Amino acid sequence: MRPSGRKLDQKRSVSIETGVMKHAEGSCLIKVGDTHVLCSASVEERIPPFLRNTGLGWVTAEYGMLPRATNTRNRREASQGKQGGRTVEIQRLIGRSLRAGIDRSALGERQITVDCDVIQADGGTRCAAITGGWVALRMAVNTLLKAGVISSDPIIDHVAAVSCGIYAGQPVLDLDYAEDSSAGVDGNFVMLGDLRMIEVQMSGEGSVFGRAEMNTMLDLAEAGITELVAAQKAAL
Amino acid sequence: MRPSGRKLDQKRSVSIETGVMKHAEGSCLIKVGDTHVLCSASVEERIPPFLRNTGLGWVTAEYGMLPRATNTRNRREASQGKQGGRTVEIQRLIGRSLRAGIDRSALGERQITVDCDVIQADGGTRCAAITGGWVALRMAVNTLLKAGVISSDPIIDHVAAVSCGIYAGQPVLDLDYAEDSSAGVDGNFVMLGDLRMIEVQMSGEGSVFGRAEMNTMLDLAEAGITELVAAQKAAL
Amino acid sequence: MRPSGRKLDQKRSVSIETGVMKHAEGSCLIKVGDTHVLCSASVEERIPPFLRNTGLGWVTAEYGMLPRATNTRNRREASQGKQGGRTVEIQRLIGRSLRAGIDRSALGERQITVDCDVIQADGGTRCAAITGGWVALRMAVNTLLKAGVISSDPIIDHVAAVSCGIYAGQPVLDLDYAEDSSAGVDGNFVMLGDLRMIEVQMSGEGSVFGRAEMNTMLDLAEAGITELVAAQKAAL
Amino acid sequence: MRPSGRKLDQKRSVSIETGVMKHAEGSCLIKVGDTHVLCSASVEERIPPFLRNTGLGWVTAEYGMLPRATNTRNRREASQGKQGGRTVEIQRLIGRSLRAGIDRSALGERQITVDCDVIQADGGTRCAAITGGWVALRMAVNTLLKAGVISSDPIIDHVAAVSCGIYAGQPVLDLDYAEDSSAGVDGNFVMLGDLRMIEVQMSGEGSVFGRAEMNTMLDLAEAGITELVAAQKAAL
Amino acid sequence: MRPSGRKLDQKRSVSIETGVMKHAEGSCLIKVGDTHVLCSASVEERIPPFLRNTGLGWVTAEYGMLPRATNTRNRREASQGKQGGRTVEIQRLIGRSLRAGIDRSALGERQITVDCDVIQADGGTRCAAITGGWVALRMAVNTLLKAGVISSDPIIDHVAAVSCGIYAGQPVLDLDYAEDSSAGVDGNFVMLGDLRMIEVQMSGEGSVFGRAEMNTMLDLAEAGITELVAAQKAAL
Amino acid sequence: MRPSGRKLDQKRSVSIETGVMKHAEGSCLIKVGDTHVLCSASVEERIPPFLRNTGLGWVTAEYGMLPRATNTRNRREASQGKQGGRTVEIQRLIGRSLRAGIDRSALGERQITVDCDVIQADGGTRCAAITGGWVALRMAVNTLLKAGVISSDPIIDHVAAVSCGIYAGQPVLDLDYAEDSSAGVDGNFVMLGDLRMIEVQMSGEGSVFGRAEMNTMLDLAEAGITELVAAQKAAL
Repeated sequence: MRPSGRKLDQKRSVSIETGVMKHAEGSCLIKVGDTHVLCSASVEERIPPFLRNTGLGWVTAEYGMLPRATNTRNRREASQGKQGGRTVEIQRLIGRSLRAGIDRSALGERQITVDCDVIQADGGTRCAAITGGWVALRMAVNTLLKAGVISSDPIIDHVAAVSCGIYAGQPVLDLDYAEDSSAGVDGNFVMLGDLRMIEVQMSGEGSVFGRAEMNTMLDLAEAGITELVAAQKAAL
Repeated sequence: MRPSGRKLDQKRSVSIETGVMKHAEGSCLIKVGDTHVLCSASVEERIPPFLRNTGLGWVTAEYGMLPRATNTRNRREASQGKQGGRTVEIQRLIGRSLRAGIDRSALGERQITVDCDVIQADGGTRCAAITGGWVALRMAVNTLLKAGVISSDPIIDHVAAVSCGIYAGQPVLDLDYAEDSSAGVDGNFVMLGDLRMIEVQMSGEGSVFGRAEMNTMLDLAEAGITELVAAQKAAL
Repeated sequence: MRPSGRKLDQKRSVSIETGVMKHAEGSCLIKVGDTHVLCSASVEERIPPFLRNTGLGWVTAEYGMLPRATNTRNRREASQGKQGGRTVEIQRLIGRSLRAGIDRSALGERQITVDCDVIQADGGTRCAAITGGWVALRMAVNTLLKAGVISSDPIIDHVAAVSCGIYAGQPVLDLDYAEDSSAGVDGNFVMLGDLRMIEVQMSGEGSVFGRAEMNTMLDLAEAGITELVAAQKAAL
Repeated sequence: MRPSGRKLDQKRSVSIETGVMKHAEGSCLIKVGDTHVLCSASVEERIPPFLRNTGLGWVTAEYGMLPRATNTRNRREASQGKQGGRTVEIQRLIGRSLRAGIDRSALGERQITVDCDVIQADGGTRCAAITGGWVALRMAVNTLLKAGVISSDPIIDHVAAVSCGIYAGQPVLDLDYAEDSSAGVDGNFVMLGDLRMIEVQMSGEGSVFGRAEMNTMLDLAEAGITELVAAQKAAL
Repeated sequence: MRPSGRKLDQKRSVSIETGVMKHAEGSCLIKVGDTHVLCSASVEERIPPFLRNTGLGWVTAEYGMLPRATNTRNRREASQGKQGGRTVEIQRLIGRSLRAGIDRSALGERQITVDCDVIQADGGTRCAAITGGWVALRMAVNTLLKAGVISSDPIIDHVAAVSCGIYAGQPVLDLDYAEDSSAGVDGNFVMLGDLRMIEVQMSGEGSVFGRAEMNTMLDLAEAGITELVAAQKAAL
Repeated sequence: MRPSGRKLDQKRSVSIETGVMKHAEGSCLIKVGDTHVLCSASVEERIPPFLRNTGLGWVTAEYGMLPRATNTRNRREASQGKQGGRTVEIQRLIGRSLRAGIDRSALGERQITVDCDVIQADGGTRCAAITGGWVALRMAVNTLLKAGVISSDPIIDHVAAVSCGIYAGQPVLDLDYAEDSSAGVDGNFVMLGDLRMIEVQMSGEGSVFGRAEMNTMLDLAEAGITELVAAQKAAL
């Protein structure tokens, strides 16, 4: 029933290749099916003004998409003179998600910026960005630990994200573009490795959903997150 | 336990005054406690380019906040030269929410823009904007029906929104600013009048939540939406 | 002869309601006929760079208009990415006018920002903004005096503004939108409570005027200002 | 008493050199003392959208200042990414002023843009721009008449502008920078050749003025305009 | 003598992998040493306004760099709200270079946009972008030929680019970052496959050069271009 | 054969008038045929952040063009909200060129900004800007020397620029607009007074060139620079 022939609860295959950008403190290329996202983590010994003298660190994210990552070319945001609303929403989500998995006090007054650039898009780019972004973040933190810049590990747990939605009336896991563009309900679930939730965003445009469907989607999401965490572990 | 002395499941009082802007096809001033939002709906006989010749209408929203709606003055977005990420996120949410409650085919090729301007903020401005915005939209649609511009009512059901969160370890309904600024988890629930869900956004910054807490918040939200829909009915 | 049926020298009724924004140090909603402007005054213990170490304070103003304050919806300046020329002109006028009525040395090195947001427009919004803005400023200064932050009152006198113009060949007081949009000459008069002038702006687009007409308009303006000052006193 | 040694009612010398930009339909370099403004008028066979099919033409103006026209270098507006409030105010004034001296129906559906660029500034740049801009406009209209594009002359009368102010307690004509920067009251008077007024802008920052002073300034302005109109006639 | 140990006339190794972006009509990842650039070519059946009804096509280019392509993170141009001067210069160069190798009449009224995004930077990114961009362009043109959209091949010849400079007093071929950042003279040479020149940009900041040095650099460049054209042929 | 009737190796006449802007530390109006550029040099006792505490000074340039410097009016960059790509390219070239002729260590930690504003354009504006800009820079440095602010002359040599191109198949010197707009190859040559090269930019759009043509253009350029340096000397 799904365009890709996948089962309702079947994720796309995931691969995570680390160390793909030589200058970054942490980096990976995550491929979730045909969705490819390049993630890097950059450590800077400075902090946003509102955190000065708090002893707390900061993790933030930026998201971009190459103009031809998609089926038809999109205008480059840099030449348009601003980031679109969708970009802003996504990068705020990535930042909040990654911050939930880190002890900012143990990180100390420094900032890690996670850049997630979509090389090729086929649905689920924000989830891939979070999952891959965490790997880059983990590597950058390892660099700090190894260099003795910080002494205790600020990483609390894995952070990963997966989408679920209602496609053709059925709850499905990990929507690709063909599903995403016609799904009645679209949800993104960000969880820790222990499956506690960081962020849930479920949204119906032109459709609505009840609590039973919501619970089914949550079940699917928990299974998907479990697989993604395993992939993160394998990559590191 | 709550700073306001409210019970865990107690909403703030709500008032909705209609017809407050003489030029708009629909307008109201919604007050949810000390959060005051001015909502207007403007009908325009034009449509975004991507909808031309589809027979479908469009409902969109814009959100703003007066510089001194808050405890300390915020810079005016018009003078900063752009809308902030938070503003963009909120107005996209309002637009999606209101579109879920309307049959865009019955609306026909015209656009209704719902402007939600926060006069005074005390937490929950996006929820108040959705709830009041729907009243303005309902009035504007009534104007179209009365004028014979459209013949069948495109409104499917009420749309209302309420926040829930986990404050001091307890799920609470309708957070005010004192709670919102220190809540571990913050959620916004947008529903139809029949309590089916349009949008659920739950987010923990520096905290996480499990499924039991999620279900408790949903229960609270359903009760809150029921009250808000009653207030909408009373106002119209 | 006037669209509203008013006499040539008849102002619209004025009401000023104070304390309408709980966070602001001073605030009011001024209604001049169907022109409604929300004014707030915000005190900040900082000063523009060019005034540092001068001992002088600063009063500045910002002006905005809700998109549907007018008969047809205007684009929101925040989403357009800049304030229009008319907005810039008006807020500079409000700032200059209010500064003329204050002893900046007695105010000390702090800034008061007066925000004037037009909720509903029917001509004369800049004059209503000045007149209401002064009330908000007066209240904010009272707050500073009461708190002992400043010891002597920096307010020199009332500041109020009214428009006059030549409509259908006749000098008239306090133009509403129906008159304003077809007046040959349009003037704005800002005065102290003692009727000395702060700013006079008379402008003909497609028309000109002689000294006799100018003097008649000044006579009308003085009468109008006298009424407005009385309304300010009544409100405080 | 005046820094320049001029008498209270003495204008600076004026020179107007025409034809200084070979591509423009009309151009001049106006020098009012050390204030030098390059003015050009460009005819375009197009019209702003709001005038289409009205049979009316349009005259508009743009104003700029070279970065080192002033005593210390100002940032270039093009590199700042926007025109400042002062620039916007001035170019709107120039446009309104020039439109008051032209019969837009006789001009027909075409636009004349008058560019006024300050090469060197010593006070009174907006007045010099209006006075020189009218000469460029007159020349461009002559070009249209000579080419037979229009058959009747749309120019109604000369348009010229001069400043007056209260300097060291005395009304003075044509303020230079040394006076302007410390004047209590500053006024700009735009008139037709027959001395009827197009625009009067009198403004006190930190000072106020009464009707007697206003009348004295008007007398001075009328004398100044008479001289400027003579200079315009001599130049053409 | 060179930081990399290369000989004066030794280029870095080059690899070009094609077909790396599934949506694009042509794409490749070019690696010149540690400089990695992702190039895609997008065909659009539209044309810039100035070319309408000329029968001519257009080839244009955009250039970007991921924030962490470099040793320290650069701010993302999309979030800064504009493309920097260096970016603008480079993308104009790429566009001009590629247009010189194509018969725009044989291309017909369509546009090919070549996006060059630097994944990792180690000097010479603009040269790698031109060389890789041409491969993507060649592939996109092949797609058009195969689909029968165009019937004759508009590609005139290969286009490739290489840098030369004067490092430590010696002319060297293909500068990497270590050399580039301290070279006295830096030159970029864009040539057709037959070694005729499209663009030569030689620039000394803090240094100058004579004709003998210029000729030596040209000799080096010709050898470098020959190698690059061979790599292009091998990749296709 | 040339539209102007000039010989292939014949420059346009050059005039340089100094001291044309009274506020600037150095200024001139350079006329190369009908190309007129106003150049000023402004000294500021501040330095870009990246040079603080290096002991080095900075020379930078900005370039602008009056809207009606050209045959048809161009939009003003200040009102468009950004400098175009061509402007950015040119002002970076002027800055690099002038810096090559100055010993930044002898200049000390101060900045000289050279503004080049094209009053009238007829081809070759960037070359005229460099040649005139150097005269303004020379004068500003003289001011510093005379005032004893610096003690040794930081100017190394003259800097001048000229264009050459291939017009109608023939290498020609100093292209005017009629030639420039149809030349197959266009080159700009910036040299020191001793004819060593600072910058060479040769570019073919729709055409290419060989080494023989390049050498002929260089010969022409050397002759042109020699003339320009003589004109600079005469002006000072």
